[in-house]
Amino acid sequence: METDILVIGGGPAGMVSAITARRYYPDKKIKLIRNVLNGCVPCGIPYMFYSLKDPTENKMGIAPLENNKIDVFVDEAISINRTQKTVTTVTGKSYGYKKLILALGSKPMVPPIPGIDKAGVYPVYKDMDFLLPSVQEVKKSKKVIVIGGGFIGVEFADEISKINGKEVVLIETLDRILANSFDKEFSQMAHEKLTARGVKVIVKQSVKEIIGKDRVEKVRLSSGEEIEADSIILGTGAVPTTKIAVDAGLAIGMGKGIWVDEYMRTTDPDIFAVGDCAGKRDFYTRKDTAVMLASTATAEARVAGANLYKLQVIRENKGTIAIYSTYVDGLIMGSAGLTEVTAKKENFDIVTGSSQTIDKHPGTLPGAHTINVKLIFSRKAGILLGGQVTGGPCCGELINIIGMAIQQRVSYTELETLQMATHPFVTAAPTMYPIVMAALDASKKI
Amino acid sequence: METDILVIGGGPAGMVSAITARRYYPDKKIKLIRNVLNGCVPCGIPYMFYSLKDPTENKMGIAPLENNKIDVFVDEAISINRTQKTVTTVTGKSYGYKKLILALGSKPMVPPIPGIDKAGVYPVYKDMDFLLPSVQEVKKSKKVIVIGGGFIGVEFADEISKINGKEVVLIETLDRILANSFDKEFSQMAHEKLTARGVKVIVKQSVKEIIGKDRVEKVRLSSGEEIEADSIILGTGAVPTTKIAVDAGLAIGMGKGIWVDEYMRTTDPDIFAVGDCAGKRDFYTRKDTAVMLASTATAEARVAGANLYKLQVIRENKGTIAIYSTYVDGLIMGSAGLTEVTAKKENFDIVTGSSQTIDKHPGTLPGAHTINVKLIFSRKAGILLGGQVTGGPCCGELINIIGMAIQQRVSYTELETLQMATHPFVTAAPTMYPIVMAALDASKKI
Repeated sequence: METDILVIGGGPAGMVSAITARRYYPDKKIKLIRNVLNGCVPCGIPYMFYSLKDPTENKMGIAPLENNKIDVFVDEAISINRTQKTVTTVTGKSYGYKKLILALGSKPMVPPIPGIDKAGVYPVYKDMDFLLPSVQEVKKSKKVIVIGGGFIGVEFADEISKINGKEVVLIETLDRILANSFDKEFSQMAHEKLTARGVKVIVKQSVKEIIGKDRVEKVRLSSGEEIEADSIILGTGAVPTTKIAVDAGLAIGMGKGIWVDEYMRTTDPDIFAVGDCAGKRDFYTRKDTAVMLASTATAEARVAGANLYKLQVIRENKGTIAIYSTYVDGLIMGSAGLTEVTAKKENFDIVTGSSQTIDKHPGTLPGAHTINVKLIFSRKAGILLGGQVTGGPCCGELINIIGMAIQQRVSYTELETLQMATHPFVTAAPTMYPIVMAALDASKKI
Repeated sequence: METDILVIGGGPAGMVSAITARRYYPDKKIKLIRNVLNGCVPCGIPYMFYSLKDPTENKMGIAPLENNKIDVFVDEAISINRTQKTVTTVTGKSYGYKKLILALGSKPMVPPIPGIDKAGVYPVYKDMDFLLPSVQEVKKSKKVIVIGGGFIGVEFADEISKINGKEVVLIETLDRILANSFDKEFSQMAHEKLTARGVKVIVKQSVKEIIGKDRVEKVRLSSGEEIEADSIILGTGAVPTTKIAVDAGLAIGMGKGIWVDEYMRTTDPDIFAVGDCAGKRDFYTRKDTAVMLASTATAEARVAGANLYKLQVIRENKGTIAIYSTYVDGLIMGSAGLTEVTAKKENFDIVTGSSQTIDKHPGTLPGAHTINVKLIFSRKAGILLGGQVTGGPCCGELINIIGMAIQQRVSYTELETLQMATHPFVTAAPTMYPIVMAALDASKKI
């Protein structure tokens, strides 16, 4: 089967690549192969347990693809022939391409713990046909252990604890949860929120063994302590899916993803890679970085989709910043760029600034929340390197203001004199605007 | 009385000037003169009728000034002697200064309508001792007319209509409400919201006469129609307070405010002017512009306060953008920079892009709102000139992302490839991020 543009992968990276390609190349034939029949909204998976009325609401349909005249095939690519420009699938079909986009995604990391293959242990696969029965099983359990205190683990623990009668334990190897994206004081807020909900948070402990007959019954920690469990959810990270790319001779970078340039081109100029399977270089250090977020994937997909035949959409914000938000018991937490810890680890000379304000003004208006903002600046260059926020619903977009500022290399003096909109019901007072106040706090120290 | 830094005015501009000066000049003596005993949060005034449990909660106290060792005097400045560097007050006192900051504010415009001085007609003075009895009076009225369909008028009409049994009429001279800050389709949304609440919105009509014995009983419109009223609120704009500056020989620019340079210095290098009393130049055209917003005032105050003795905080975003948000029956509306109408009026060659998304993903999560975004770009330069948003609570900060992008002269390609944080509960899906989608829509047309 001949086509102009072939996309492998039906997650956000694949879908957005294909739809963007359709916008920029209206006359090309576009096909998309995906290996799951029923896809899902990846970020919505934790919320299938309780917040969504019906877990099937988290389905990601193919209507946006069909509406854009993209032919969708459920199949699995097993090899690429770069000379003939064909892709072969597990069902024995062969697809010809002019331009190929690899949006292969990632697979949940399954740590080599003895007993990990027992029934009742659930890695998080992005496939509704796997997820729906898993959710039902976990809902029947009384004692649920979540392994991994990154944002996936934290969101699962928070969500499952909303179900009446559940006993949830979250286990993290490092000395605090959310350690990769937040500084200590922010991790602490999340820790307190989870604990207040009744989640037992255990840090500095790893799971040494999963014990049970066929099904999990308990886990043994590095301390020797044993904890009972009816189900275990693994929030222990993910690894890029790259096998068919490697087999085809495409380069892997210094990290684990497929090597790509700024325009998502692999070492083969007709093959692009986007999303979790593609390598990413850090915005500041140009080192390979393991950011795997749907939002990052869609940004890359837009770059690739537009630039398949000609470089049209210039990528002006070079490199990947880690930018995301999470939710713990109603507290929104956002992080963008470097934390104080990661900046110091990379040997940046920094100053930080913090602010605490209220998201309404006067703060006595009903429904007000406290906002905390921390900004990290280069001491000498003065530019913003990173930021963290916590607070109410406004923080979902407040972190994106910080993200925009990072991508535009904004300085603390620019933030001090920022012009912003404020309104009593939806923002802090203009006299106390949190990003400005944090910039002022940093500025004092420079 | 000698001082180093003298601030005249106790609103947000005056307060933030004084507090910023304290941060940057810790050893200087700072005094602040204000002409009202009990100040208020200006943006909170509409919400004294219903949303604030007690209208006195809208008081703006002087604790932040006292905490920063700023001496506060309730008095009214009546003249400046620039040779002797003194300010004389209505109580006959004389204050010496090294650096003087004029934060004189603005006064509500009272249109010359026959009968405007009758009892029951309320301009909006920013003085609690005036506002508290006015709010009580209006609350006793059954029929309330609000004159002026700008954001002040719209917020008053919306808020007062929340009180049981009130009949509220909003009267606007132009052919639609919010016409200065929003394009037609956005004005329409606000219009529908107000109408659905029971507010009668009358456009293309001006008030020709206010009729009544001593107290207002009805108004006569340009059409001849008469409408009964127990109270009238004036939302008809404001004029900068500049008399003592003019009397002292300071220049007024092409507009009505005191002329200032980029660092808020007047034609006298030791006198600064900030906030509503100071002239503003448009970010795009450098024409004088009549933006009077507390948030703009605080940005100017931070520039002035830091730069009194030495230019330390460089103002990198030159010129004023109109950026603000408002609230109509739960709908948040934000505007930044030029609208399509104002851009065309100024003869910019533009393209616009629009998007409609949901502020949660999947959109079936409880509490989801529709978001509308419109962006205005220069067709040739590709840079962002303005944007408008409506939707749920996230829009309070969504408009500030657009504001940051305008101030950084971001192009549509940069927005197309923006890296942003998304989360099911607090943002649109990454595949549908509203600012990115609107940029893509514009990009198609370029």
